[in-house]
Amino acid sequence: MTDRDPTLAQVGEFTVIDRIVAGRAQPPSVVLGPGDDAAIVLAGDGRTVVSTDMLVQDRHFRLDWSTPYDIGRKAIAQNAADAEAMGATPTAFVVAFGAPKETPASAAVAMSDGMWAEVAKFGAGIVGGDLVSAPLWVVSVTVLGDLGGREPVRRDTARPGDIVAVIGELGRSAAGYALWLKGICEPAELRRRHLVPEPPYGQGAAAARAGASSMTDVSDGLAADLGHIAAASGVRIDLSRQALRADHDALAPVAAGTGDDAWDWVLGGGEDHALVATFAGAPPPGWRTIGRVLDGAAGVDLDGEPWRGSAGWQSF
Amino acid sequence: MTDRDPTLAQVGEFTVIDRIVAGRAQPPSVVLGPGDDAAIVLAGDGRTVVSTDMLVQDRHFRLDWSTPYDIGRKAIAQNAADAEAMGATPTAFVVAFGAPKETPASAAVAMSDGMWAEVAKFGAGIVGGDLVSAPLWVVSVTVLGDLGGREPVRRDTARPGDIVAVIGELGRSAAGYALWLKGICEPAELRRRHLVPEPPYGQGAAAARAGASSMTDVSDGLAADLGHIAAASGVRIDLSRQALRADHDALAPVAAGTGDDAWDWVLGGGEDHALVATFAGAPPPGWRTIGRVLDGAAGVDLDGEPWRGSAGWQSF
Repeated sequence: MTDRDPTLAQVGEFTVIDRIVAGRAQPPSVVLGPGDDAAIVLAGDGRTVVSTDMLVQDRHFRLDWSTPYDIGRKAIAQNAADAEAMGATPTAFVVAFGAPKETPASAAVAMSDGMWAEVAKFGAGIVGGDLVSAPLWVVSVTVLGDLGGREPVRRDTARPGDIVAVIGELGRSAAGYALWLKGICEPAELRRRHLVPEPPYGQGAAAARAGASSMTDVSDGLAADLGHIAAASGVRIDLSRQALRADHDALAPVAAGTGDDAWDWVLGGGEDHALVATFAGAPPPGWRTIGRVLDGAAGVDLDGEPWRGSAGWQSF
Repeated sequence: MTDRDPTLAQVGEFTVIDRIVAGRAQPPSVVLGPGDDAAIVLAGDGRTVVSTDMLVQDRHFRLDWSTPYDIGRKAIAQNAADAEAMGATPTAFVVAFGAPKETPASAAVAMSDGMWAEVAKFGAGIVGGDLVSAPLWVVSVTVLGDLGGREPVRRDTARPGDIVAVIGELGRSAAGYALWLKGICEPAELRRRHLVPEPPYGQGAAAARAGASSMTDVSDGLAADLGHIAAASGVRIDLSRQALRADHDALAPVAAGTGDDAWDWVLGGGEDHALVATFAGAPPPGWRTIGRVLDGAAGVDLDGEPWRGSAGWQSF
């Protein structure tokens, strides 16, 4: 640690927070930003969408793979995707950050920079937070969102006869993870995708406007997350291998190099935060139809057969 | 670990969440509770108050002192106090919980029971959360609050000539901490106070209605937290030793037993989450006048002399 790289303990909580907060431009929906006991945000249509996710070092990210900036982007992206998955627009975030006292204060500022870079993509603000001492990095983010007067798009309202459609990347994060684990440097873009997802911002609201009957984001894996919709809605979902072939084929050469099955990545890989939804009519432009909703016991099939691959992300 | 006490890993994330969520009655302001990608809460007056705090094992609580139920109560109480300190009523919470996979699932349920017991005091709900694996307990809570059409009570709006008043306990948590550290069993009530604060719920809104010019909750210590008001408002705050004597005298016998100075607890002890505010007129019933706001360099005095005791809680 050089003199130029003082630690959180040396700089102190309040000075670090001052540095993190300095010069950030809050959007018009923020009535009161950081610096008081709480922030105040306009609730567009009189309702607030709220969701929270916690990222733990060595469980959800590694400090030898991700920069603090990457971690900040990922933490915002995965929370924003939860608001998107309701059909909402993410508007404001609060961030609780635990880290060892030896952590360079510049790392906390860099993480905040990454968070602000990510929220800039959809015009939200980071309105408050907490900074505490912890034996390892823990980043807990809460997103607030605005439904813009629309009904929320839930998980328990898919109907037999609907089509299933997706927008955003599938299997990229899982493929990138395999590359990192095996020390394979290319494709570098896939390695990046594992560190920083690229959710299809704005498409949650687009799906809601198009009448999506149910929606979720792909955080645990396509089959696992559709399994949640199937269970909540009491329907069977049948995915089409043919419709997903382009996703498979894009990853097949990489899978050949790592010794994996690209189908496992496409159907079982999470953390890309694609949006998957069901529609009685046509999905919005850019969405790919990948299956259909059927009557039957709750579950997910691939071409009529139960999917026997990865059960998706396990928290424990 | 007996068969009757299965772990988080044995039970699994989704089943534990089902148990935590089962049978909870959400208040009418909750449009959509747990179980989807996000929850939806009514924003009473079109604005949402939001604040977040992270509690880390062995930093903010000890598992050999606090039960999971206690930790749940404390985590809610300290976040609720942040909403109260704006003059708002806490309405909804989301909770991110990290714990080792060997943690009994019953402990997570007990923590949730404590959280629900605490929110029942003011009619709020716990509307969502996240459950992840971590090497130690980390509890990150976000509170949403409703200003009921009132202006928020900020920290930067105290005015010379105002009186300073407080409601709630001072120094009790610090006294209890000393008892725990030194293995002194009585007064048991003070030991309890260290584990579970008793914020004066409803008094934040009462202060706002009474025209409080500034307010905060005592989380770091009375002098430290008033120092934040003094710095933000550009005022000097003079506390009266005589006005605080009852708080001191209540703790003096305990301090004699632990070898501490009760003034350090009253002026420097945090975590009781009393509310302290400034008023141009009379404070609401039950508030104790303890000082006044003066022109002068930002800072906090006791009877005209700078307070030289504890600087309050240090995060690092």
